[in-house]
This record gives sequence, structure tokens and C-alpha cells, in this order.
Amino acid sequence: MALIVQKFGGTSVANIERIRHVASLVKREVDAGNQVAVVVSAMAGATNQLVAWVNELSDLTADAALKEYDVVVSSGEQVTSGLLALALQELGIPARSWQGWQIPLRTDGAHGKARIEQIETDRLKATLKREVAIVPGFQGIGPGDLITTLGRGGSDTSAVALAAALGADRCDIYTDVDGVYTSDPRVVPKARKLKKVAYEEMLEMASLGAKVLHTRSVQMAMSHNVRVQVLSSFEDVEGSMLVEEKEVVERRLVTGITYSNDEARITLVAVPNTPGVAASIFGPLADAEVNVDMIIQNISEDGKTTDMTFTASKTDAARAVKVLEGLKAALKYRDLVMDTKVSKVSVIGVGMRTHAGIAQQMFKTLADKGINILAITTSEIKISVLIESEYVELAMRAMHTAYDLDAVEEKIAPAAPRSKKAS
Amino acid sequence: MALIVQKFGGTSVANIERIRHVASLVKREVDAGNQVAVVVSAMAGATNQLVAWVNELSDLTADAALKEYDVVVSSGEQVTSGLLALALQELGIPARSWQGWQIPLRTDGAHGKARIEQIETDRLKATLKREVAIVPGFQGIGPGDLITTLGRGGSDTSAVALAAALGADRCDIYTDVDGVYTSDPRVVPKARKLKKVAYEEMLEMASLGAKVLHTRSVQMAMSHNVRVQVLSSFEDVEGSMLVEEKEVVERRLVTGITYSNDEARITLVAVPNTPGVAASIFGPLADAEVNVDMIIQNISEDGKTTDMTFTASKTDAARAVKVLEGLKAALKYRDLVMDTKVSKVSVIGVGMRTHAGIAQQMFKTLADKGINILAITTSEIKISVLIESEYVELAMRAMHTAYDLDAVEEKIAPAAPRSKKAS
Repeated sequence: MALIVQKFGGTSVANIERIRHVASLVKREVDAGNQVAVVVSAMAGATNQLVAWVNELSDLTADAALKEYDVVVSSGEQVTSGLLALALQELGIPARSWQGWQIPLRTDGAHGKARIEQIETDRLKATLKREVAIVPGFQGIGPGDLITTLGRGGSDTSAVALAAALGADRCDIYTDVDGVYTSDPRVVPKARKLKKVAYEEMLEMASLGAKVLHTRSVQMAMSHNVRVQVLSSFEDVEGSMLVEEKEVVERRLVTGITYSNDEARITLVAVPNTPGVAASIFGPLADAEVNVDMIIQNISEDGKTTDMTFTASKTDAARAVKVLEGLKAALKYRDLVMDTKVSKVSVIGVGMRTHAGIAQQMFKTLADKGINILAITTSEIKISVLIESEYVELAMRAMHTAYDLDAVEEKIAPAAPRSKKAS
Repeated sequence: MALIVQKFGGTSVANIERIRHVASLVKREVDAGNQVAVVVSAMAGATNQLVAWVNELSDLTADAALKEYDVVVSSGEQVTSGLLALALQELGIPARSWQGWQIPLRTDGAHGKARIEQIETDRLKATLKREVAIVPGFQGIGPGDLITTLGRGGSDTSAVALAAALGADRCDIYTDVDGVYTSDPRVVPKARKLKKVAYEEMLEMASLGAKVLHTRSVQMAMSHNVRVQVLSSFEDVEGSMLVEEKEVVERRLVTGITYSNDEARITLVAVPNTPGVAASIFGPLADAEVNVDMIIQNISEDGKTTDMTFTASKTDAARAVKVLEGLKAALKYRDLVMDTKVSKVSVIGVGMRTHAGIAQQMFKTLADKGINILAITTSEIKISVLIESEYVELAMRAMHTAYDLDAVEEKIAPAAPRSKKAS
């Protein structure tokens, strides 16, 4: 007998028929003799509707407004938690819903993007012996007994945190794709599903563009050593398991190739090359909460000026331009250029720790296809390059082949659409 | 400075534009220097959608199911409470929402139709000095810290109970009609709005067909002496005030005329006329929770059999027929006849306590129009008659004129539709 946490995303509970199907997936675990806690998202579209109403009324700059935002948007998960409990009861499975404040699932007071601090599990654990617990994802209770929400992707985090707190044997994240792939199958038709992925790899893949799991949930799984399985609620096939690096027995240099189009490149042309110039540029950007990714600095031939280039997400870049235009007099640059037709392509794999030549292979593959590299960043287990957006698909397919990731079978891309997750 | 409770029904908060308008009505009270607590229903239609989902999944016979019903349907009021707080904040009025469990508003454990037991007001009252409190109607917290709901019409009850607990100076119930009328203006175009209505009259009117306030809220207002005002959130006109009988200075014999089409008449033909026959019929009906209204017993000429006739709501009557058919052998009746084409028309007024001849006037008016009376019940301040449904409108208009209730002006029927209230 095991203790399992199952999590179902918005498309998995999109309507009553889907909720009935989810109940049958829960029943299967119960029938197998397991204790089960379930985390649910809001019905697909519900959160967007609630957020739209809120946005009509408020720009959400005040903390008092964010508190009410949490009251409104957390209701979507409340609805599905009750409905799934009813669906299970109809199958003869005792079940009840547990709102964040009933557990309680304590968070800090950062409304709209709260962090889980503590989950009280004594009462919950006792009830799991006789009934399934349905926990609405995404929501918690903060200081002053106010409702909080965890931000986008929060339901994955709820599930992993609950699994960690309960000491669950497994945390199954059901979604509309059937696992973690070597690359996005819509771009790379030969992408293969991975049976096992190391936490660190998944973390890089999530932050570098893969939508399948939210970064925070992977961080939490890694730090609490939660065995997370990603699988489909639409197709009854084996999923992918997040495991410790030593458990990945399959020998491979590269595990996955991801991309992100949410990139912009900003260049300050001919900034006087004085000591401290980088600090005077990136200090104000940090103050404006601009998340700078790659940085490239070219010194002019005479050494007197420098071109300073960096990348950021498109939203952050727009804010960065505002900040830097305000600093033109102080920074004394000649020109500011922003380019949003750039993309980041990354190769990820724990195999890089022990194998040289992976970067070399990447540069050669891109050069062979005539693709220019605009910037490079690396870490121990990933290499990212910035390229012009129009080459993204070509680059990914070429690298997928170059790193020997192509599926042996003709095509095993999933049937279900790969979509953004709601919460 | 006064403490006011304002309650807004589902049509009053049906969309963001209406919620903004409601915020302006709250602001008016705040600007006048009052402390304000607001009770809101769910957006019109929201509760029906939630109930429909629940009904797709469960027949709600088990208590565990009713608990989840409450989790699901209470979310509608949670949404509007947060949205109205945001709308007020945007107008510069500090405001926050208080869910039933946050107050706490304690109820018994009768899920789906809970009764309010206690409202803790110390914390709430302290905050009213600096901000508006928005309380979702219809919801509370029961034993085991489970969410409860008060049943249909529950938001009116929430508002009156909150006003009583806070010792509010007034409880304003905003709805889609602008007050209490002498009769339904859709049926009786000459119906007049009443400035003042005695609690007892309103209670009879609510139970006898008037939809404007829920019976339980009137009972509560009466027992706690809450000054309730009924007024429109759509039109800025004076409403109707519920007051003690002695405050109704206007002299009148009859205050209102109501009707109900939700009536059925059941006759057991030729039941042996033995002692205890009534008990053997109505005992089992009471066990089946059939609410019997009028009863008529005719003894046959030889005294050996009796025809037993009674009325009940259409839903209850269907259940009664099942029960009585099961008892046919025991009761030995010859035949069972159900007639659903009957309606109840009632005249109500505290003036009846002191004036004779009001029933006489009613019977004469109906006789003059050739309308047959099928059954009669009376209380100290009301007379109800059962008639064939097709005569309802004729009967009501005739009585409205006979009791001198017709408006002096040509027509002052309200512009807004008179509709059933959601919660």
C-alpha cells in the first residue's frame, strides 16, 4: 500500500465528463489499495474568466487589491474540488474536499504569488485512511487568515508540496501531454518521450521553455526528493518520471532541446568604456526588476567605447528600454537598439558534466546550417544560444539529430495538444 | 452617523457594470458618514450553473454530497464579494471581503439549508470604522469547520442576521423591484407600492406567494426588530420599509393580495369514516415531509364514508400521491384524484384584527364574478381561498378594487421585471 498524490490540470477537469474520467483515474489507485490525495486546478478557462473580471475593476497595484484578487481567483479551484469529491462519491469512493484554510496550507503574505510555508498534515493524513482528500491547487491561507494564491503554475507546486509534506510515495502530475519529451513534438516531430529525467535537467528545461511543469514545482520536488511522474489524463500510457541523477541509467549526452521566443535583445551602442559602467547600467535595471539573462560586451578598437548587449524577456525588455532611455544623459551612450526577433535555443543534459565537446557539436551543427549565433550562455548542464527567430525550427531539428535524440520509430508525437497550463 | 447593512441580489451584481453601480450605491452611504457592511448574492445565473454541475454528478441524498454541494455553490458569492471590494477600492473606499469562515458566521450542520446560530462581530465591527466589509450572502461555517449554505433566499437572511448581530440602524435590501406592492403589478396593473408594511403582513405575503423577500429573512427581521427597507438597485426611488404594526399609521383593512400557482389538490374519495382516519392519512404524509396546507373533509350522507381533500405544493403533492397509493390497502379509499390546475389567492392585512366583514367582502366579490371557492383557510391577518387557476387574474383584480387598493394615479407599476431571486 502506498500513499499517492495525483494532480489534475485545467484541461483534465474542463467539464463534468472530464471530471468523471478523473474520478475513474483516482478510483484506479484506490482500488489498487493506495491512499490518495488529489490536487485539482480550476476548470480550463475558469481562472482566465475570473482574472478578466478582476482586471476590469482594478490594476492590482495596491496590496488590498491583490488580497481580493486572491479571493476571486481561488474560487475556481474550490469549485472543481467539490465537484470531483461528488464524482468520487458517485463511484462509491468516500471523498471530501479540503480548502487551503481548512487544511491549513499556510503561505506567506505575498498575495498573488504566495510561497508555501507549512502544510499541517496530521488531520489530513488520518482521513486518508478512510477517504480520498481533494485539495484545490493554487490556494492557501496567509497571515491574518486571508486567502492567498501561489501564482501561475501554482497547482503543480501545491501538489509537489503536499506530496512532500505527506511523505507520499509518488506525485503523479496528470496533464494534456503524456510526459516529458526530448523536444517540443510540434517543432521536432522526431522528439521522443523520456522515461526518466533528472531533477536538474527538468529544472533547466522548465526555465528554458518547456511548458510541461512549472519551475517552482520542480525546484520543490528536487529539494524534497519527491518522485514526480508526468502523465496524460487523456491517454492511458506510461509517463515520465523525475528522479535523482544517479537513477538515470540510460547513457546520453543531451536529454532535451528547448526553445523560447519570449526573448528580446537590447544593445547600448558606444557607451564610454569607464570602470563601473556595467554597474551603472545593470544596477538600475535590477531595481526595476528587469531579469537580465545573457550579457555580451564588445570593446571598440581604440578601447574608448563599448557596445553593451543583453537579453531579457519581452515584457522585461520593454521596461528596460524605459529605464535606459531615462538614463541616456548619465550613461552617455550613442544609441539604444532593441531586437525582438530573436529566440533562445538550449541543449540540456547531465551528461555534459562528464563529456566534453557538446558545445563544439552545437556550434558546428548551427554553422553547417548557416545559422549565426548572437550570444551564448552555459551552465554545468546546459548551453543556450541566441539566434534569429526564423531559424528556430531548423536549429532544433538539426541539433535533435546531431545529438542522436531522434526516435527510432517513424513518429511517436502525442495526439493531445501541448498547451500552456492555467494554474 | 449610522451603521447600515446593504444587501444586493443576483441581478444587482449580474456583471461588472452592475457591480460598479452597486459600489456607487455603497459609496453614497459612506459619503453620508455611515459605517457600511454589504451582503452580496452571486452574479445572476452563477448559482444556477453551479447547481446544474452538481446535479449532473449527484442526487444529493447523502450528507457527504450535501457538504460538497455547499463547497461548490458558495463559491458564487465568494466571487462577487471580492469583485465588489475591488470596485469600492477603485472608488477610493477602503473595503475588504469577509468569507463566512473568516467572520466566522456560524451555522448548524444542516448542509444545503443551514440555520445561522451565531455571528461573531467584534472583529468585524472594529474594521467597519475604517473600511467597508463585504460579506458573501448565503454561506456560513458549520460544525467541523465545513462550509455551509443557507438554502435559497439565504442572502436575504444573511443580511438581516448580520444587521441584527451588528445592531445596525437599517438593513437595505436592494433588488430588481423597487419595493413591496399591494399586489403583483404584472397581474394587477393598479397595484400600489407600500411605504410601510408590518412584519407580520410581510411574513404572510412572503409565504403566500410574494417573491420580494424570503420568508426566513422576514421572520428574523421580526424577531430581532431589524428595520428592513426593500428598494431597487436599478431605479433611485424610495422603497418600502418593514416596521412594527404600531408604526403603520396608514389606515387600511387589507395591505396586500398575493397568489400562488404552485398548488395541487388531492382528494381521497370514499374513505371509510372511522375514528383516527385523518391521523392514518396525515401521519404518513408528515413522515414523508409533505407540507399539507388546506384540509377539507366531507362526510357522505349515510355517514359511512368521507371524501378527504387537501392541498400541498406541486412537488410535495407528487410525493404525497406516491405515499397514499402505497397505503391504498390500509386506508381502503375508493379513488385518488389529483388536480394541479388550482391556485391560492390570499388577502393579507393587520387591519383584519379589528375589522369584521373582510372575508364576507371576499366571498361576495368572487361570487359576483362567478368564481367558485374550492377551499378556505384563515388566520388572524389573512384569508386564503383555493380557486381554479384560470380565474386567478380576474379574482385578484376584482379584489384589489373591492378592497380599495387601486392606485389613484393611472399606473405606477415598476419598470424593472419582477423575477425570482437566486439566493
